[in-house]
Amino acid sequence: MTVADSSLAPVVLDRAREATQPALRAAVARLEPPLAKVSAYHMGWVDVQGRPVPGNGGKALRPALALLSAEAVGAPVELGVPGAVGVELVHNFSLLHDDLMDGDEERRHRPTAWKAFGPGLAVLAGDGLLVLAEQVLMESAGQGARAAKLLTDATAALIDGQSQDLSFETRMDVTVDECLAMAGNKTGALLAAASAIGAALAGADQAVVDKLYGFGHNLGIAFQAVDDLLGIWGRPEVTGKSAWNDLRQRKKSVPVVAALNSGHAEAGRLAELYVSPGELTESQLDAAARLIEDAGGRARTEAEAQRHLELALGCLDGLGIPEVTRTDLAALAAFTTTREL
Amino acid sequence: MTVADSSLAPVVLDRAREATQPALRAAVARLEPPLAKVSAYHMGWVDVQGRPVPGNGGKALRPALALLSAEAVGAPVELGVPGAVGVELVHNFSLLHDDLMDGDEERRHRPTAWKAFGPGLAVLAGDGLLVLAEQVLMESAGQGARAAKLLTDATAALIDGQSQDLSFETRMDVTVDECLAMAGNKTGALLAAASAIGAALAGADQAVVDKLYGFGHNLGIAFQAVDDLLGIWGRPEVTGKSAWNDLRQRKKSVPVVAALNSGHAEAGRLAELYVSPGELTESQLDAAARLIEDAGGRARTEAEAQRHLELALGCLDGLGIPEVTRTDLAALAAFTTTREL
Repeated sequence: MTVADSSLAPVVLDRAREATQPALRAAVARLEPPLAKVSAYHMGWVDVQGRPVPGNGGKALRPALALLSAEAVGAPVELGVPGAVGVELVHNFSLLHDDLMDGDEERRHRPTAWKAFGPGLAVLAGDGLLVLAEQVLMESAGQGARAAKLLTDATAALIDGQSQDLSFETRMDVTVDECLAMAGNKTGALLAAASAIGAALAGADQAVVDKLYGFGHNLGIAFQAVDDLLGIWGRPEVTGKSAWNDLRQRKKSVPVVAALNSGHAEAGRLAELYVSPGELTESQLDAAARLIEDAGGRARTEAEAQRHLELALGCLDGLGIPEVTRTDLAALAAFTTTREL
Repeated sequence: MTVADSSLAPVVLDRAREATQPALRAAVARLEPPLAKVSAYHMGWVDVQGRPVPGNGGKALRPALALLSAEAVGAPVELGVPGAVGVELVHNFSLLHDDLMDGDEERRHRPTAWKAFGPGLAVLAGDGLLVLAEQVLMESAGQGARAAKLLTDATAALIDGQSQDLSFETRMDVTVDECLAMAGNKTGALLAAASAIGAALAGADQAVVDKLYGFGHNLGIAFQAVDDLLGIWGRPEVTGKSAWNDLRQRKKSVPVVAALNSGHAEAGRLAELYVSPGELTESQLDAAARLIEDAGGRARTEAEAQRHLELALGCLDGLGIPEVTRTDLAALAAFTTTREL
């Protein structure tokens, strides 16, 4: 669905992970031992007993964007490191709390932190990571206060997005615009802050910071649209979740909302399934997926993903970003929006 | 237990509440509607349906300290308002999350927010208030970034304190020093930030800000020591909790820890009661309270409260604080440490 080349992405992500890990681990080690342990478990660094485990602890998309954002304005990559640490800490704060709120019991094939350590420590570890993110930025070289404000405002938007998402559960009149705005908050705001924070730390002009923010914001919406497609039509062996997972949970994802608002006859039949009592059977799930596709929900979502990816890439124009950095940013954009269905 | 006059305190608190309320309500109104409603309910402004209720929403101790902290360095009280709002928001963030962690089902004779709206919305509303506190300071006139860092560091200490408190539950070897350090984090850090934040916003010398911070920090430890005394010997009609409440929950409060570490014969008998299985009977609770008193736990806690109150008041010396402001600060200090047993 995109022309950019994603093959560079693994290298870019690996490099970012290596550049960020020492500062990220040092930051988490500042927490009281029980919170440091819960956080390290959640990050995939240790097991429940606190023993180191193999693995690299996630794909480091947000740190990579933060480091490239410093490079984009000609600053040394080191200046972006506190930004990379800050966005990764906020990302993990939100995962810790969202897993509890959503009742999710597994993450990366292990019990979620609240299942392993109880809700209290999971909430408190999340709080700890959020505050730590602010501290890391406020203490950093470069324009730390400016970067802290950027991240704080993005975190406020992320919380708004989670609230909107929760409120959609009890509504049948959600519009596609509301759904995209929610994605822009819940997923877009932090990718936006990540894409701008290195430039902010480096003292770049606000107009440049704003354009980089726009890149990440649109990328986040495209990312969420692709995620919504995977949540219905993704193959279990690729997504690690059961087929039709989002339909089983009756999520108001973009394809569903687009279908419900399509004006097609299928919309009413889909709405009936969504409000019917009890668990949906496999044949009802199969029917729902077909109704969404027939009502144009899949095509609309693919179009939105493509449109927001193009908007994202367009934000990189005219900023004088070094060609190598722009190629890396485009590779990450392609990588996050071309996951296999 | 103190010579200062607390009779002025109600007036000081009322004035602070009036000066802070409009900005505080405007800040909370920035949250998404479900979070604004949960927050307003938690603050005591509305009922579960969101309808306004009579009452003034708490005693405004932290806002009062913040406003006096601006006055203490000769700044107009208005300059302290974002600080007052910020500390009150962080205070309520911590109450929302602590009520859930501690399993508390009632606050001010109403169901706690997590009981009324579910754990998810209570966690998210707490997150929202924490981020809002940062935003209010970062957007404020005066030295907003400096004030935001002061509040962020205090919030990190507050979270450390809550973690320490939770870890005490499973330990029988807690020392009095650990207990006071925990109180210094859990209760002292935010009172410290409140007492310094107005001066920080007003651009006062760091040495002055540090002394005001010390005032609030010591006041917080004294406050917690008095709270611990009330948790055992407070009369239910005064505390609103059942007699021996902290013993029933086997809290490692200062009097208990002081008794356990006293070296007296009573220490062993108290430890036996604390590790015995099942709920403690009324006669066991009565026996525990007597053992604590006989082992000197009550006297030691009263002495620590008095000592930290004097340390707090000593921090106000030599700062050139206007006499009227100093009288108000001393009145608040007396008020928070002379609650009736």
